[in-house]
Amino acid sequence: MTDLADLDTPCLLLDRTRLDRNVARVNARLAALGVTPRPHQKTGKSIHVARRAMATPTGPATVSTLAEAEHLAAHGVTDILYAVGIAPGKLDRVTRIRAGGCDLMLCVDSVEAARRTAAHAARTGDAIPVFVEIDSDGLRAGLPPDHPDVIAVARALVDGGAALAGVMTHFGGSYAGRSPEDFAAMAETERAAAVLAADRLRAAGFVVPRVSVGSTPTALFARDLTGITEARPGVCLFQDLVMAGIGVCTPDDVALSVLATVIGHQREKGWILVDAGWMAMSRDRGTARLAVDQGYGMVCDLDGRPYADLIVTDANQEHGIVARRPGSPGPVPDLPVGARVRILPNHACATAAQHGAYRVLDGGRTVVAIWERTNGW
Amino acid sequence: MTDLADLDTPCLLLDRTRLDRNVARVNARLAALGVTPRPHQKTGKSIHVARRAMATPTGPATVSTLAEAEHLAAHGVTDILYAVGIAPGKLDRVTRIRAGGCDLMLCVDSVEAARRTAAHAARTGDAIPVFVEIDSDGLRAGLPPDHPDVIAVARALVDGGAALAGVMTHFGGSYAGRSPEDFAAMAETERAAAVLAADRLRAAGFVVPRVSVGSTPTALFARDLTGITEARPGVCLFQDLVMAGIGVCTPDDVALSVLATVIGHQREKGWILVDAGWMAMSRDRGTARLAVDQGYGMVCDLDGRPYADLIVTDANQEHGIVARRPGSPGPVPDLPVGARVRILPNHACATAAQHGAYRVLDGGRTVVAIWERTNGW
Repeated sequence: MTDLADLDTPCLLLDRTRLDRNVARVNARLAALGVTPRPHQKTGKSIHVARRAMATPTGPATVSTLAEAEHLAAHGVTDILYAVGIAPGKLDRVTRIRAGGCDLMLCVDSVEAARRTAAHAARTGDAIPVFVEIDSDGLRAGLPPDHPDVIAVARALVDGGAALAGVMTHFGGSYAGRSPEDFAAMAETERAAAVLAADRLRAAGFVVPRVSVGSTPTALFARDLTGITEARPGVCLFQDLVMAGIGVCTPDDVALSVLATVIGHQREKGWILVDAGWMAMSRDRGTARLAVDQGYGMVCDLDGRPYADLIVTDANQEHGIVARRPGSPGPVPDLPVGARVRILPNHACATAAQHGAYRVLDGGRTVVAIWERTNGW
Repeated sequence: MTDLADLDTPCLLLDRTRLDRNVARVNARLAALGVTPRPHQKTGKSIHVARRAMATPTGPATVSTLAEAEHLAAHGVTDILYAVGIAPGKLDRVTRIRAGGCDLMLCVDSVEAARRTAAHAARTGDAIPVFVEIDSDGLRAGLPPDHPDVIAVARALVDGGAALAGVMTHFGGSYAGRSPEDFAAMAETERAAAVLAADRLRAAGFVVPRVSVGSTPTALFARDLTGITEARPGVCLFQDLVMAGIGVCTPDDVALSVLATVIGHQREKGWILVDAGWMAMSRDRGTARLAVDQGYGMVCDLDGRPYADLIVTDANQEHGIVARRPGSPGPVPDLPVGARVRILPNHACATAAQHGAYRVLDGGRTVVAIWERTNGW
């Protein structure tokens, strides 16, 4: 049992007490709305995180890379959606994963991609289930729900040798919301887009087994998900300062932190230098555009209690500059060279990706497990 | 021999023809100024990159993590400076590296850190060489060159059982320059700070074997380095769009790129979606504050030739949105689903860190080697 005082720094900590609480919150919310969770593993990238969030040990789950799919499949997960439009060059790898017994599903948003995927399915004799991706926020991929190609894509899939898994959409624009009312309205927009596309496909004669939505704010604040079968929340398993900054959670919910050691001071400037720079925190400055800018992260003691107004105000590659929030008077805490702090991240997905593993805590200061991450593609 | 058309995407490409040209440029410049290169491995994190940049196969080299030091030492590099203020908790690991035959050197900028390092040296019977870190730009760590503690730190090191390796400084503020004149003036500030500190130490009776400076703009544009013994340029081995944006190089010098595949379009918006989002490019938006904002990167064809005004205008975790630069009229190139592009990064250190290895090119489209990176700490 390693204590936080004995770990090499910087390193990534995951408080599984908070993780479990976050999972319970979102899954209770989805259960109340009659929707199955298909938790997104883009943040956790670990079977251990996935198992605490999935409805069953075999899934459902969502992934952002085929490396995540391979990792989960190797650990017995059989119901996975790869929620990034499939590139034709990845189809052989998809077939290998599916041949291992995992029902990996894909998504496309064009007739072109549907035809190529279906041709691969026909060639391999495996009717890969593919979602039609719908655009509900105008910010990324997907077809508008009323676009003629929604039907044409489904037709190309089914006629070409693949199967129609359903329709899916992601309202990433929900990060622009600031209140429960905002998020509820966005959740309704997301729901309505997915249901409209599904209804149109059904009217055209297709069976639409799944109607899938997802995003942390919309999953947590939706008031009605009629017509939706599943939701794909991701970052809410860990939460972060961006989610806290838009009112989705509080800093007390953030399950991830980076352990850092004090390496020096610039006392006349009120600076404490630590060995966690942007390499350990990531370059993500997601709170810069919010009401409270948390710099590169909020600084806490070893028990995870924030120091008043203490943040990482700037970062070089391996140096973090810890100081009082701009405009906040008063001295910095007395943290000598060798002292240790925990830093809550702006963006859990980005910070976690800078690290190869989690040192897992159970609410205290003792490492109870090490969970490897599946970075890369 | 793998062709770019056959690689899994996204993945990291390194053109070693450009790397070698960049190395030749900076090393020629330093040789003309009578200074030994101690190239910084924070960008490359690979023995193969280090060997192409170091003066000899055993060094000198600079590192930003002990993981880099361990990697280089395991491959025969014996002269290494770990250029981040040492945390006391890392000293046992330093001793293990040194016991293996590598003369790993450290730096400190306080009497407190000097005493703890010297006490460890005395306890282990190994007089670790330690640099006094000098602050030349006011932006990070180090003592002002005229500060009384410069002498006190050297005294604490030598009297306590360590050795004085020299003085070192890093003028990271050089990234704010925009012209050869700016960089030359900053190089002179950096030089003067290091030399002043060294002169004061010598006047106090210390032997100062090394006077070390470093930063890409100052190393490339210094006009005189009298009194300096070595320089630690880093990012100039790879170059990037930030360096091009401040006039240190051109985009043609950038040795790194990310290979990506087209996964879809939003044609009415002029968007091409690729499978390289911020996870593949990093969250670094270093060109956002420069005259030309390159978004998340400049888009090139498979031969590395930029498409006119085509950049990654926005990025989600695994989605990059490729479009014409804002304000640039005209259509985007006809790149169907499955087509491939190369994306030049804002910041080589940050983008490379998102990947586990380099696919190495020799100016063409064929992968001639795979070089693993040493990420983490």
